Amino acid sequence: MGRIRKKVGTKEELLSYSPPIALNPETNKGKWRAYFGNSNPIHIEIGTGKGTFITTLASRNPEINYLGFEKVEEVLLLATKKAINLNLKNMGFIWGDVSDILEYFAPEEIDRLYINFCDPWPKKRHEKRRLTYRDFLDFYQQILKPEGEIHYKTDNEGLFQSSLNEFCHRKWNLKNISLNLYKDLPEDNVATEYETKFVGKGSSIFRLEANIPD
Amino acid sequence: MGRIRKKVGTKEELLSYSPPIALNPETNKGKWRAYFGNSNPIHIEIGTGKGTFITTLASRNPEINYLGFEKVEEVLLLATKKAINLNLKNMGFIWGDVSDILEYFAPEEIDRLYINFCDPWPKKRHEKRRLTYRDFLDFYQQILKPEGEIHYKTDNEGLFQSSLNEFCHRKWNLKNISLNLYKDLPEDNVATEYETKFVGKGSSIFRLEANIPD
Ligand SMILES: C[S@@+](CC[C@H](N)C(=O)[O-])C[C@H]1O[C@@H](n2cnc3c(N)ncnc32)[C@H](O)[C@@H]1O
Ligand SMILES: C[S@@+](CC[C@H](N)C(=O)[O-])C[C@H]1O[C@@H](n2cnc3c(N)ncnc32)[C@H](O)[C@@H]1O
Repeated sequence: MGRIRKKVGTKEELLSYSPPIALNPETNKGKWRAYFGNSNPIHIEIGTGKGTFITTLASRNPEINYLGFEKVEEVLLLATKKAINLNLKNMGFIWGDVSDILEYFAPEEIDRLYINFCDPWPKKRHEKRRLTYRDFLDFYQQILKPEGEIHYKTDNEGLFQSSLNEFCHRKWNLKNISLNLYKDLPEDNVATEYETKFVGKGSSIFRLEANIPD
Repeated sequence: MGRIRKKVGTKEELLSYSPPIALNPETNKGKWRAYFGNSNPIHIEIGTGKGTFITTLASRNPEINYLGFEKVEEVLLLATKKAINLNLKNMGFIWGDVSDILEYFAPEEIDRLYINFCDPWPKKRHEKRRLTYRDFLDFYQQILKPEGEIHYKTDNEGLFQSSLNEFCHRKWNLKNISLNLYKDLPEDNVATEYETKFVGKGSSIFRLEANIPD
């Protein structure tokens, strides 16, 4: 597909950037290492948004393959352009919904999964939509390797509280829990777009790492 | 021992109130049910302070035996007087240090352990003194029944963060984690002296329940 068009819809433009956009990503299920052409670890971010986080990691760590997973075309297009500008060989994107994540990845295909500032869905009746709800955790558990882990950040206290309870409910092993990340900021922290915005407003940032249940 | 003396030291006065003060409490190790004269569950609070929390619970729940554990005579004396004023039959006190808790309780003797607003020891080099440090958790695990649990509250964010990490490190099963207890205050919450003070200042209160590791 040619990249230069007079006038295209977002969707068409997005799909013209392949790579890094993975066309028909479900056909790569169980074959992502072949997609990247090596057997390096695969780290994915779900709800990638405009992609600063994942593209920064990808440029810092060429020996890891990164996949950004996002459902909204407009922001995914911006993330895709960032990866193109950085000329990243170890970066792909999937245009999809996390509810369908098992269609895209085979069991134990993933080494790490990042969730950054996912939508809080504060109403109790919407809790099943939170990307750390127990049913989502069960999906992630399937696609992660036994030593695989989730790295999770949010500014939202109510969401973080709910997430802690969900992870514990499903007996994930938590570590490096932080209730105020910027009080003792790890050197290697990479801020996401939302993170920069919320830190600028003076919000606390919550973070945790979770290993899949024993 | 007579209760009325012209002039007595705090220690002597404290020991004159028996019951509810348990004299030579180590002799009751493994025999606390005999001490209370029934086989009701036993709930203890460590670092009881002035005792509002535990005496309130004891007056509400006559079918549960309560033990307040405290090392400082002056505050324990106040707690003891509260229990006497309320004429509580299901309430005892141990004057002791939590570091020696295994001298006072046999394995699986305790049904529940409360920790409320324990000293935060904010410096990293003092972390071993925090009552939720891993070595203390290992003590509690020994004296709690398999279905036993810890109920823990604090106003201190850094301490709560450390506690979450310690409990997870030792693979306790956490539930009902709250990062802002007063946002959605449980009906049956009993405020401690420190809690009332900190809530009055506008602090958030953190809480969790922990079941012993599987
Ligand atoms: C609040 S934004 C955060 C974006 C970015 N992670 C950051 O921290 O700046 C949440 C992102 O997740 C995406 N998202 C929400 N639910 C999703 C789902 N079910 N599947 C895929 N993406 C989703 C949204 O479209 C949005 O881009
Ligand atoms: C900050 S006060 C809180 C008192 C009460 N729980 C409240 O919430 O109001 C901590 C209490 O724990 C007691 N304490 C601290 N370390 C202790 C230990 N190792 N053994 C027994 N008591 C201890 C202190 O003497 C003090 O009364």
